[in-house]
Amino acid sequence: MINITLPDGSVRQYQKGVTGLEIASSISEGLARNVLAVKVNDSVWDLSRPIEEDANVQLLTWNDDLGKNTFWHSSAHLLAEALEELYPGIKFGIGPPVENGFYYDVDLGEGRTFSQDDFAKVEQKMLELARAKNEYKREEVSKADAIKYFTEKGDQYKLDLIKDLEDGSITFYTQGNFVDLCRGPHIPNTGFIKAAKLMNVAGAYWRGDEKSKQLTRIYGVTFPKQKELTEYLERLEEAKKRDHRKLGKELELFAFSEKVGMGLPLWLPKGTLLRERLEQFMRKAQVKAGYQPVVTPHIGSKELYITSGHYEKYGADSFQPIKTPNEGEEFFLKPMNCPHHCEIYKTRPRSYKELPVRLAEFGTVYRYEQSGELHGLTRVRGFTQDDAHIFCRPDQVKDEFKKVIDLVLYVFNALGFEDYTAQISLRDPENKQKYIGGDEAWEKAESAIIEAAEEKGLRTVTELGEAAFYGPKLDFMVRDALGRKWQLGTIQVDYQLPERFQLEYIGADNQKHRPVMIHRAPFGSLERFVAVLIEHCGGNFPLWLSPEQFAILPISEKYQDFAQQVYDRLQQEDIRGFVDNRDEKIGRKIRDAEVSKVPYMLIVGEKEQENGAVSVRKHGEGDLGTMTVEEFISSFQSKVAEMLNN
Amino acid sequence: MINITLPDGSVRQYQKGVTGLEIASSISEGLARNVLAVKVNDSVWDLSRPIEEDANVQLLTWNDDLGKNTFWHSSAHLLAEALEELYPGIKFGIGPPVENGFYYDVDLGEGRTFSQDDFAKVEQKMLELARAKNEYKREEVSKADAIKYFTEKGDQYKLDLIKDLEDGSITFYTQGNFVDLCRGPHIPNTGFIKAAKLMNVAGAYWRGDEKSKQLTRIYGVTFPKQKELTEYLERLEEAKKRDHRKLGKELELFAFSEKVGMGLPLWLPKGTLLRERLEQFMRKAQVKAGYQPVVTPHIGSKELYITSGHYEKYGADSFQPIKTPNEGEEFFLKPMNCPHHCEIYKTRPRSYKELPVRLAEFGTVYRYEQSGELHGLTRVRGFTQDDAHIFCRPDQVKDEFKKVIDLVLYVFNALGFEDYTAQISLRDPENKQKYIGGDEAWEKAESAIIEAAEEKGLRTVTELGEAAFYGPKLDFMVRDALGRKWQLGTIQVDYQLPERFQLEYIGADNQKHRPVMIHRAPFGSLERFVAVLIEHCGGNFPLWLSPEQFAILPISEKYQDFAQQVYDRLQQEDIRGFVDNRDEKIGRKIRDAEVSKVPYMLIVGEKEQENGAVSVRKHGEGDLGTMTVEEFISSFQSKVAEMLNN
Repeated sequence: MINITLPDGSVRQYQKGVTGLEIASSISEGLARNVLAVKVNDSVWDLSRPIEEDANVQLLTWNDDLGKNTFWHSSAHLLAEALEELYPGIKFGIGPPVENGFYYDVDLGEGRTFSQDDFAKVEQKMLELARAKNEYKREEVSKADAIKYFTEKGDQYKLDLIKDLEDGSITFYTQGNFVDLCRGPHIPNTGFIKAAKLMNVAGAYWRGDEKSKQLTRIYGVTFPKQKELTEYLERLEEAKKRDHRKLGKELELFAFSEKVGMGLPLWLPKGTLLRERLEQFMRKAQVKAGYQPVVTPHIGSKELYITSGHYEKYGADSFQPIKTPNEGEEFFLKPMNCPHHCEIYKTRPRSYKELPVRLAEFGTVYRYEQSGELHGLTRVRGFTQDDAHIFCRPDQVKDEFKKVIDLVLYVFNALGFEDYTAQISLRDPENKQKYIGGDEAWEKAESAIIEAAEEKGLRTVTELGEAAFYGPKLDFMVRDALGRKWQLGTIQVDYQLPERFQLEYIGADNQKHRPVMIHRAPFGSLERFVAVLIEHCGGNFPLWLSPEQFAILPISEKYQDFAQQVYDRLQQEDIRGFVDNRDEKIGRKIRDAEVSKVPYMLIVGEKEQENGAVSVRKHGEGDLGTMTVEEFISSFQSKVAEMLNN
Repeated sequence: MINITLPDGSVRQYQKGVTGLEIASSISEGLARNVLAVKVNDSVWDLSRPIEEDANVQLLTWNDDLGKNTFWHSSAHLLAEALEELYPGIKFGIGPPVENGFYYDVDLGEGRTFSQDDFAKVEQKMLELARAKNEYKREEVSKADAIKYFTEKGDQYKLDLIKDLEDGSITFYTQGNFVDLCRGPHIPNTGFIKAAKLMNVAGAYWRGDEKSKQLTRIYGVTFPKQKELTEYLERLEEAKKRDHRKLGKELELFAFSEKVGMGLPLWLPKGTLLRERLEQFMRKAQVKAGYQPVVTPHIGSKELYITSGHYEKYGADSFQPIKTPNEGEEFFLKPMNCPHHCEIYKTRPRSYKELPVRLAEFGTVYRYEQSGELHGLTRVRGFTQDDAHIFCRPDQVKDEFKKVIDLVLYVFNALGFEDYTAQISLRDPENKQKYIGGDEAWEKAESAIIEAAEEKGLRTVTELGEAAFYGPKLDFMVRDALGRKWQLGTIQVDYQLPERFQLEYIGADNQKHRPVMIHRAPFGSLERFVAVLIEHCGGNFPLWLSPEQFAILPISEKYQDFAQQVYDRLQQEDIRGFVDNRDEKIGRKIRDAEVSKVPYMLIVGEKEQENGAVSVRKHGEGDLGTMTVEEFISSFQSKVAEMLNN
């Protein structure tokens, strides 16, 4: 008998050689129907593979990322099988699972083309083959046999792959008539695949090498239920509508100019207003939390980056140095704000009594990205971090961490992000030499983070070996309204920079000590955050953040003066909007305001003018009745205060 | 008879050959006593030189810059005479007047040195020679005679100068025993000089050439009254105390770091607060005035600057281009924000109805300066402009100009600058080809500026030929509390960039038109403005701007909780300060707060705690009595509102 430990910690005994499927069956029939693969210790196995020793076992279904992965990997084989039936003689490169589905790189053969028009017949063939419930059969083959097989088949790509493999480690997988060189694992049979859709076709060089032949990359996605495919396509459609690049243009938030340069956003007036409100919101929260704002230049001398250690990393992949006339100086665009903040810390001696010192800056940094990798506001060459660096005593790390978590959660709450988890990244305990700083300091910092997250009741995932080499960290992963995951806020402990910059404080013992540094940025990059926010709320920003919070709609020209008075009064209170003085019927004005998503429509006519009042309509909610301007202001302000928890 | 036209436009007739002194005598005896030189048409003459033709004549006294200039030039000769008596055989380079006094470059001869210790005896000798009332006598000499004289004297420097002069244009001036090669003019005699002080001694290469011999440069200053020297030295002393570099350090406003780089200020927390308040103040005023904020990156591609015309000027004197890997792109640190704003204007078609478009940005720009020319915050390599660009129709220029003048005056008023003039810089009417843009456009823009300044009742000086080549401008010159002049706000009309960027709007006639652009920056550079402000107010900032507006002083530890409550309440209202929780007597706390110039001291003890009150002391004014916290807040806020004219 062997001991099988399940994820909940329970241990069950089975015969040596038990398979994943047998374990699933022993637990429940439903599970046996849905299980796709099994994780045995650290690797994923076919369900039919015998387990010969004690092991930690996790049964993987569609709800596990690794389960989906296996499902899509098997679907790539199904795609290949379908293609081989439809295009005899086709050759295959590689066919891995990706984030949303899978692809296969193929060589269709001389003169053959493949386009969107061919998708439907391939999808049909895939479903036809799926219905046959062909088993995915694993077989170990010798290198010689593998070479023989693919030589006979005439597939130079597979031969190219086999060349690099070690004899004894080679496996084939077969389903139906299709045989593939593959490490696996796979789902039990093709019958699990109930819905298939090809998504895209593109060119891709064999092994990513521009000098090799260009193959055809066919992307697809599959699901265990037709309904899931339908929902997926709807989400894609919705994501397209919410694409921040599209909405950013429509709402006139930002623009790019070729002359200014790729990946360098220009913030238009409405986008700037939104950005300033975000900054103002964060500034206020930070002042309350004891941060001190600073401002530093966007360049730094070579010496600064030699000290910080960044200089070594400024290679061919970065913006190159800025030289100056005569004096042989060199400057760099700053890729982060920390070295500048270290220099501010050093402007005077520090005592243990004044720690923590929390220096905050909305610092714009520049990092080179290849033009092909740029994408709207999510991947840019210049962006503004809501950056801060906390210099504290080692005994203050946990407390500071908890305060930063509070701040991050306050931000998420005010912006409507409700679904988030925290990833705690620790040292690889097997490879301690990869990290700088002593054992004791690391252990203290790691347990400070773990305890802080626990005491704050965060849902966490812990990853060993994912810490930065200079310290452990905690990242917030947020799920948006479309279910997509984004990494937003980050908090990192750093032992390296205090060392490199020789930062000090005088302790209670009158001796010099080294402070610990915490990097943190709740938004991360303002640009990226705004992009995520736009897509999360589909352009319907939280009221307090909306660049246009009201539209005053005079019923006729006669009430334009009163409309202007109302406008001026609202602007005094920093409530932003506009008067629609067009010569249009009121019905049209309301319709237009609805379309442009203005939260409040304030209709003014004779009765309103007499009473210093406005008739209020809320976007998507309709008529809220008539109220005085002052009543509207106080209702508006209390709504905002509630959101911001002020 | 010849006609002499005086500055007030009156014309007087005199005998041909009349001198400046005779004209002065004919006007008043007092004037004749005080007159130093005479401006005849465009050049300054000795008072004794005969005027042979009709001329415009201005009699120059100590109150005229040209009068002072002449006085100090003559004083340089007096210094030389004194030195020659004390150091026989000394050789002379050049001895011009400078902004505050004059200098003479001398070669003392082998083995002789000159230091601060020698100042007194030279000053005494100068005054002794001055009392002799020696006349400054002008004499025309031939080149041959001039060479002969200085060859005999053995002064190779004067010979070096004569070499480049044209025969027939050479004059000598003699006073007492001293003869100098000099174009003049000079004051009538040395008796006008009643006070003399040597200020400094430094090395200076002959003719500024490092390969030539190093001479000794002796700086001095003289006055027509002893009292004026005393006042001047007091002002210098005060200026030293108010030096923004010194106060910036003491008040912890900003710092420099060698590692970050010279001329790149780091704004410390208190300085950042001050800076943010200034920005907030301007932002508010600008929103009220219809400006729209935008944000643009700190770099721009080479193409942007080729379009704007700046690329041609990026020479060896600038920050060099930033290259990127692979793609052969080049970027530049932005030296101004206008090209970026032109690109924002172009993001969509514009109609005449939406003009003026006013785009505002606190844009940080970078311009290379040689390290020797850097000075605190007044001469830096990176600075933030309170920049905006107004894109308007030609018929809107005057109105926009007036609105900008309003904004500038609002700023000056809120910051306590009461003494200012405006310089209007127009085309040189003789050299129209130097400027771009048609005659009609120039005439319209120039008269728009002149009328706008007049209608706003500004004190103006008009300078022909001082316009930028792309348009006329108006600069504000501000006199600070020490009487020093600073150029602050600037408003410029620009025809060039709209042309180069092909900016357009659709007019009422449905045709494409070119807008006019106005550049404007009321502060100019935030860095420079803060430097001037620090020196103007000696660190006692206007209340609304003060980084620390109050200090709460608990009488004993027992009242620390109440002090914290008061602090929290004030912070809610964005009133900034701190609690002095030190274990010190209240008298000491008050004294320390006075020294650090905190405007309000709020003392809290038992009585105050009972009544929710504070005992208020104002810096420099003393006890204001007890009031409730809410009373203090409203009195504070109304004081600030009054200053800001809100």
